[in-house]
Amino acid sequence: MSEPLRLGIAGLGTVGTGVVKIVRQKANLLAARAGRPVVITAVSARTRDKDRGVRIGDYAWEDDPVKLAARDDVDVFVELMGGSDGPAKAATEAAIAAGKDVVTANKAMLAHHGQALAEAAEAAGRVIRFEAAVAGGIPVIKALTEGLAGNEIVRVMGVMNGTCNYILTRMQSAGLSYETVFEEASVLGYLEADPELDVGGIDAGHKLSLLSAIAFGAQVNFEGVELEGIGQITIEDIRAAADMGFRIKLLGVAQMGARGLEQRMSPCLVPADSPLGQLEGGTNMVVIEGDHVGQIVLRGAGAGEGPTASAVLGDVMDIARGIRPATFGRPAVELEPAKAAKGATPAPYYLRMTLQDKPGALAKIATVLGEAGVSIDRMRQYGHEDASAPVLIVTHKTQRRALDEALVAMGRLDVLVGAPVALRIETA
Amino acid sequence: MSEPLRLGIAGLGTVGTGVVKIVRQKANLLAARAGRPVVITAVSARTRDKDRGVRIGDYAWEDDPVKLAARDDVDVFVELMGGSDGPAKAATEAAIAAGKDVVTANKAMLAHHGQALAEAAEAAGRVIRFEAAVAGGIPVIKALTEGLAGNEIVRVMGVMNGTCNYILTRMQSAGLSYETVFEEASVLGYLEADPELDVGGIDAGHKLSLLSAIAFGAQVNFEGVELEGIGQITIEDIRAAADMGFRIKLLGVAQMGARGLEQRMSPCLVPADSPLGQLEGGTNMVVIEGDHVGQIVLRGAGAGEGPTASAVLGDVMDIARGIRPATFGRPAVELEPAKAAKGATPAPYYLRMTLQDKPGALAKIATVLGEAGVSIDRMRQYGHEDASAPVLIVTHKTQRRALDEALVAMGRLDVLVGAPVALRIETA
Repeated sequence: MSEPLRLGIAGLGTVGTGVVKIVRQKANLLAARAGRPVVITAVSARTRDKDRGVRIGDYAWEDDPVKLAARDDVDVFVELMGGSDGPAKAATEAAIAAGKDVVTANKAMLAHHGQALAEAAEAAGRVIRFEAAVAGGIPVIKALTEGLAGNEIVRVMGVMNGTCNYILTRMQSAGLSYETVFEEASVLGYLEADPELDVGGIDAGHKLSLLSAIAFGAQVNFEGVELEGIGQITIEDIRAAADMGFRIKLLGVAQMGARGLEQRMSPCLVPADSPLGQLEGGTNMVVIEGDHVGQIVLRGAGAGEGPTASAVLGDVMDIARGIRPATFGRPAVELEPAKAAKGATPAPYYLRMTLQDKPGALAKIATVLGEAGVSIDRMRQYGHEDASAPVLIVTHKTQRRALDEALVAMGRLDVLVGAPVALRIETA
Repeated sequence: MSEPLRLGIAGLGTVGTGVVKIVRQKANLLAARAGRPVVITAVSARTRDKDRGVRIGDYAWEDDPVKLAARDDVDVFVELMGGSDGPAKAATEAAIAAGKDVVTANKAMLAHHGQALAEAAEAAGRVIRFEAAVAGGIPVIKALTEGLAGNEIVRVMGVMNGTCNYILTRMQSAGLSYETVFEEASVLGYLEADPELDVGGIDAGHKLSLLSAIAFGAQVNFEGVELEGIGQITIEDIRAAADMGFRIKLLGVAQMGARGLEQRMSPCLVPADSPLGQLEGGTNMVVIEGDHVGQIVLRGAGAGEGPTASAVLGDVMDIARGIRPATFGRPAVELEPAKAAKGATPAPYYLRMTLQDKPGALAKIATVLGEAGVSIDRMRQYGHEDASAPVLIVTHKTQRRALDEALVAMGRLDVLVGAPVALRIETA
């Protein structure tokens, strides 16, 4: 049996602790599968003395993750600290400079610095692997990079923030308001310290930008992701969507077209009977469409100690077995800068608005839509008791640009109460 | 850029032709991803002159696949002929003897000879890859072997024969009999030349035995698969199952327990609202349960030119990139012989029978079940006009052995019309 593969782990939160547990408990299984032992030699975390339910006294300790990353007895630097910059980035750079491979769960770091880090690693003949950064335990990076390598990728879609999907499905099943369920999620500890990372779509947008890079051979372009959070979704939207056979999901979509790379992370309506529509709670799902393979759907837990540690171990085991694909599926220096094509693909839209209850209000809205070239598929005006009337409109396929024009024009009409909500309808 | 990877393809049916098309049309994409060109140097098939919609005149021709496999200008032997023995096996052995890597879609060959072939290949330092042999375009072999390598696998389940799933879902949606839909499938060309391979569960059983080997570190043991086809399923079964919130699927299940390796390929009831229950038509689905990752669900096209060729190309691209895991995830000589534990895990069962319409018949059936230790959860007797009464019973969890005892005892009672049907209820 060959030399052991030696890990240095920086970050001993939920995921780091999970990785330590698996390496300790599964030593024989991992060695049998890898053909060599996988061992931990050194660890680093913010606090040394803390009950983590796992023994770390056997490993060398470093206060400074940068020092850990450069240790002679470390082959693979496992970065589980998080944060797009700061110690995570410094230590990852130090690991590459010292000739180590890197396994990370850090989507923010890669969304912002993935291109530079991948170039540096590849110049040094090392790999950066990040299965745990996208969709938790689902081996989607591997499927896209390796399993589907014979396909031109047509589209990648995904529900990749379990907290948002929990909030949206819980609103629907319990009939509760966004605010109430947001509060519940907060109490349950489901939300990031900065909740905008979740409900603003930022975390899921990071993930989408990494999938796009692999799928389309483009440099990671997080700034090119159209981001829209779920904070404006009301229980009325969820009910109206359900009435029409849809569910509302925070959905990421990436596709390459003649005008460039389109990346959207926004609340969308999807058919209730589609795999995406049927996804409940904190589960993640990624849908990959390839020109030969057709549609592949991958589903599993998107977060948590076990699933995320499983993904980290998958990458570690690959390195132990000599499986070393380029970070984004082809050499980083060959990735094309991605031209962002915002709102390029037309789609039907769901519009919700409240109109002042005065004669001709609805006619004015319809006229404005027509003048912008947006045609109406269905319209509903709900019964109401006060002086304002809730109206729902489903449009035929339209360019987002045309719709935005219409929304601006509506604002000038003086018939709206509050701002209208426009949600894309994404069909499979 | 490195040396090209040279393929010799044996078998130019649907899948072989699909592979040739991709290699020709996607030369640049494949080279960019692999870091080296992927080319075809030689081909072999039963008939040389035949319009395949793709040009093969550029490649050397061999009448004999064994000669193709040993050619000096071939690095990877791509076996797409099929058949468990005969030319496919002879050529695969010749390829290994000549120091070639092998990519195959041949589940029958690997189910019967996988252990010997893997040992030979590994002794020669070569790999055998077979993503296309299981669940078409879904990269499930890769997910199980590599992505989930940090997990102890708890259970693998799958709907892996699209023809059977087409028949069962079409019966349900159109309210047609098994015989009618079987005939339809035959006319549509969905059935193998020997339809028992499909509807008898043999093809899907081959696939399950390959997944088991990887999941549980065991030698392939196709003989240990409990096989039961779908030929006995009636439209009444499908309706009754639906009434109770279930769907009937030809479901493969593999799990390792204290008594050994349990592998079943049989029609089962699954919850209608589960991912497996919602699977329609010819689509395949594999569910993998790992101790850390939880449940991962993979779904996609299980057959057809594009999806199967995509899987072949995934393996080819891995070899081009130097990704060379052991055939069954660990060295073949270390795989344990699998002790078959048939019917080890208890489950609830669905029973359908027809009773003679005479006093006490149902009581006698209930007594026999009770004496065998099988307790009844639900029972329905349907209205009837002739002298025989259809009866449905759902049992509580029971050992299959106890149920079989009860079925034998019922046969002696002289109250049954025809043989009862017993289907396992598999819950997630």
